[in-house]
Amino acid sequence: MNRIDLNCDMGESFGAYRLGQDEIIMKHISSANIACGFHAGDPGTIRRTVQLAMSCGVAIGAHPGLPDLAGFGRRRMEIAPREAFEMTVYQIGAVQAFVRAEGATLTHVKPHGALYNMAAQDEALAEAIAEAVYKVEGNALLYGLAGSALIRAAEKIGLTAAQEVFADRSYEADGTLTHRSLPGAVIADSAVAASQAVDMIVKGQVMTRQGTPLALQADTVCVHGDTPEAVKHVLALREALSKAAIGVQPPGKLLR
Amino acid sequence: MNRIDLNCDMGESFGAYRLGQDEIIMKHISSANIACGFHAGDPGTIRRTVQLAMSCGVAIGAHPGLPDLAGFGRRRMEIAPREAFEMTVYQIGAVQAFVRAEGATLTHVKPHGALYNMAAQDEALAEAIAEAVYKVEGNALLYGLAGSALIRAAEKIGLTAAQEVFADRSYEADGTLTHRSLPGAVIADSAVAASQAVDMIVKGQVMTRQGTPLALQADTVCVHGDTPEAVKHVLALREALSKAAIGVQPPGKLLR
Amino acid sequence: MNRIDLNCDMGESFGAYRLGQDEIIMKHISSANIACGFHAGDPGTIRRTVQLAMSCGVAIGAHPGLPDLAGFGRRRMEIAPREAFEMTVYQIGAVQAFVRAEGATLTHVKPHGALYNMAAQDEALAEAIAEAVYKVEGNALLYGLAGSALIRAAEKIGLTAAQEVFADRSYEADGTLTHRSLPGAVIADSAVAASQAVDMIVKGQVMTRQGTPLALQADTVCVHGDTPEAVKHVLALREALSKAAIGVQPPGKLLR
Amino acid sequence: MNRIDLNCDMGESFGAYRLGQDEIIMKHISSANIACGFHAGDPGTIRRTVQLAMSCGVAIGAHPGLPDLAGFGRRRMEIAPREAFEMTVYQIGAVQAFVRAEGATLTHVKPHGALYNMAAQDEALAEAIAEAVYKVEGNALLYGLAGSALIRAAEKIGLTAAQEVFADRSYEADGTLTHRSLPGAVIADSAVAASQAVDMIVKGQVMTRQGTPLALQADTVCVHGDTPEAVKHVLALREALSKAAIGVQPPGKLLR
Repeated sequence: MNRIDLNCDMGESFGAYRLGQDEIIMKHISSANIACGFHAGDPGTIRRTVQLAMSCGVAIGAHPGLPDLAGFGRRRMEIAPREAFEMTVYQIGAVQAFVRAEGATLTHVKPHGALYNMAAQDEALAEAIAEAVYKVEGNALLYGLAGSALIRAAEKIGLTAAQEVFADRSYEADGTLTHRSLPGAVIADSAVAASQAVDMIVKGQVMTRQGTPLALQADTVCVHGDTPEAVKHVLALREALSKAAIGVQPPGKLLR
Repeated sequence: MNRIDLNCDMGESFGAYRLGQDEIIMKHISSANIACGFHAGDPGTIRRTVQLAMSCGVAIGAHPGLPDLAGFGRRRMEIAPREAFEMTVYQIGAVQAFVRAEGATLTHVKPHGALYNMAAQDEALAEAIAEAVYKVEGNALLYGLAGSALIRAAEKIGLTAAQEVFADRSYEADGTLTHRSLPGAVIADSAVAASQAVDMIVKGQVMTRQGTPLALQADTVCVHGDTPEAVKHVLALREALSKAAIGVQPPGKLLR
Repeated sequence: MNRIDLNCDMGESFGAYRLGQDEIIMKHISSANIACGFHAGDPGTIRRTVQLAMSCGVAIGAHPGLPDLAGFGRRRMEIAPREAFEMTVYQIGAVQAFVRAEGATLTHVKPHGALYNMAAQDEALAEAIAEAVYKVEGNALLYGLAGSALIRAAEKIGLTAAQEVFADRSYEADGTLTHRSLPGAVIADSAVAASQAVDMIVKGQVMTRQGTPLALQADTVCVHGDTPEAVKHVLALREALSKAAIGVQPPGKLLR
Repeated sequence: MNRIDLNCDMGESFGAYRLGQDEIIMKHISSANIACGFHAGDPGTIRRTVQLAMSCGVAIGAHPGLPDLAGFGRRRMEIAPREAFEMTVYQIGAVQAFVRAEGATLTHVKPHGALYNMAAQDEALAEAIAEAVYKVEGNALLYGLAGSALIRAAEKIGLTAAQEVFADRSYEADGTLTHRSLPGAVIADSAVAASQAVDMIVKGQVMTRQGTPLALQADTVCVHGDTPEAVKHVLALREALSKAAIGVQPPGKLLR
């Protein structure tokens, strides 16, 4: 039987500001990436999100981002690999403290937004992030874009990597995601998206925008939680997975 | 032989801003309280300070403060005990990650500035902070003002408390420090300060501003590192301790 | 004919975070207090909110708060009057630049949250805030709790004060608002709240929790915009004002 | 008689952190670029720096930067032109409020660090910044790298531009500054630097690293204030200017 992990960014509220539908989405995913307070999240939100994940039996990960609350961590910043290492160590530690306080386990780390995208392309940055994960919690999985520099950096240092794929994004022939400024970059139809996910899991490939098949390994599928249609999409995805007899569970058991 | 711990706030630089004389002071103390990024400090500074403490054989502690970089954590804020718990967990975790990445041990936690003062008086806040330390790192010592609510809260939950005394501050008959606005609150003469420290350690008492002796337990003496005279003062203190045959070492071995 | 100003806090979004229903509420008020980026708001939000207020013919004010985004400016901080002066000057200036860039006029200043409450009681803080307004934009009105220290400070330095009353809050005999922890502090029934507002405007008095009448001057009524029922409440208030033949307009023309 | 403006970044302290030697340097320059609180500076520092500049008869400018205190505004961030416009309006307004409160005049705006460098190359960003200055204070000069996109944007919208040159930096044949990673990028010898400045002012050209002369217009020379040798360098520069009979004064009178 095929199995896949469904991960979603969680705990992105800040102070009086609410973002996402964590209570609802958490019921339908298998791993949660918890914002660490740099691009989103705050100590109280981290705590509540850890507790929520535990109550739903969802694997708990840290979701470090750039120090840019105003830009939600989506604006690229010219940081040195040393800075990437340090901000990743710091943020993992912050989430891990809540995990430990609650008696849970930190299972994975997934960089956020611009940090994720930069780490997919920049070897030095990717290695700095992988080293941070390795040194703080060597048993944690490192989630990265399937086939990217971050996956290679994880494997190089001895971490278990989880290759992430996107159900609702178009792929380029070179393995990158189609830029959002291009038509068709985002797949709005949840049936089409679910179908792409099933193909990636079962066949290990996706049809690119250029019309050629791209081989990739799908360990975890990213689910979005911050749009009005988020719940509808995740339910459609779960139903398609169920029909294709693909089980949903955290990647830890699958990859080791 | 009497023994005492000398602790100092460290790692208070931020970005391009340098504060303190950590490289020099670190050689003369036995435990370092490392700022965690809320009132001072940043990921890179925490890392370098952990490494510096290790190279000097100094015990490493977390120094959590209020989220007020502009006020250096010295302005009281009306926070709920829940918020104190959460910000303490978060900050301990951040420092602990660097400690773990370097293969060291986190030995203690000491709240900073207004958080320290509030926790000395407010039972609920003190208990929230003690619970945070207990849940994240139950083996860590909790440093607090000798005889204060924070000491009681630490002992109540099962932490080992380290009672902190001040060589260069005048005491009131009720056990509080004389407010800085009053004359004589700060003892500028390093010989007088050193003498007060020795008396507190050897006799377990200090003469208050009111002229009455106050009994207190001295487990650790606070050393200041951010004034031009800091080095002179710490050297005078170490010499006075040496003459009085008082050894300097981290409190961990003394209190357990 | 009686006239009153209806003011509402606006522009409290931050980055990716949305708060309030500014587009809807703006149509029903006469003056907008725009968050300045310390407790809420950011440059882009200020700009859009200034433009929105202009398009609705609503008077534009600055709404300075404490530097505490995580606490939404609601946590009291121990700041010196000098700091209150400086943070008020800074924040007024930031909003005023957008007002000038759009060719509008800054008509008023209203402190936010804990700063508002502290300025209602603390004479030195109130005078520092009033001086900040006076020096940056002496023609601006200063909104403060009716009968409070801030009103006195405004009048003392030569500013025009606008006395603010609350339709949906219970009053104490000493002129303060009933603390939110006490039963009946908040008036949930919009008809009762509207009736209290009309009485304050027409009769210049309000019945206190103690059952005694309290005389007060009502220049502006605070409308809340951040609750689900906000629109319902403001519509009920406007209808009650209309029935009582009370016109709604910015206070500038009324008070000078 | 030739005349030149000497400008220096000022007011870069933050909270408890001190940076620069403003009191000393201010005596030797003709225009001060005051940090606005995003990459450095805070309300109290802005106020004191405005007062200091006034007491020294130095022209007062705003020095807006990226929202990156931890990186001192030196890390490039991927911001949209709209964001550059908004953050510039906000920051100019903040400084201008203190200028107005003190009864002074805001004479110029100079972007800081990465924002300055990005605006030198990126036309859209440069135009957004120029528009911000134009709309908030159309009489202010806009300082930019001599010959850069920012100078063109200023002139296009109708602002007076002040072309900035560097005494202590090597130039490339294409008009950019030699990257700091290359040998000879920074001219440490203050006599050589002063000589380069005089040549730029008198001859309107500088010898590039490639050995070819580069024509440029020198309206203002950047003086650094944050290094230990800063005072020595500015004194050497002033002496060289004096020997060359070049007067030092704010650019306002020269350019209009």
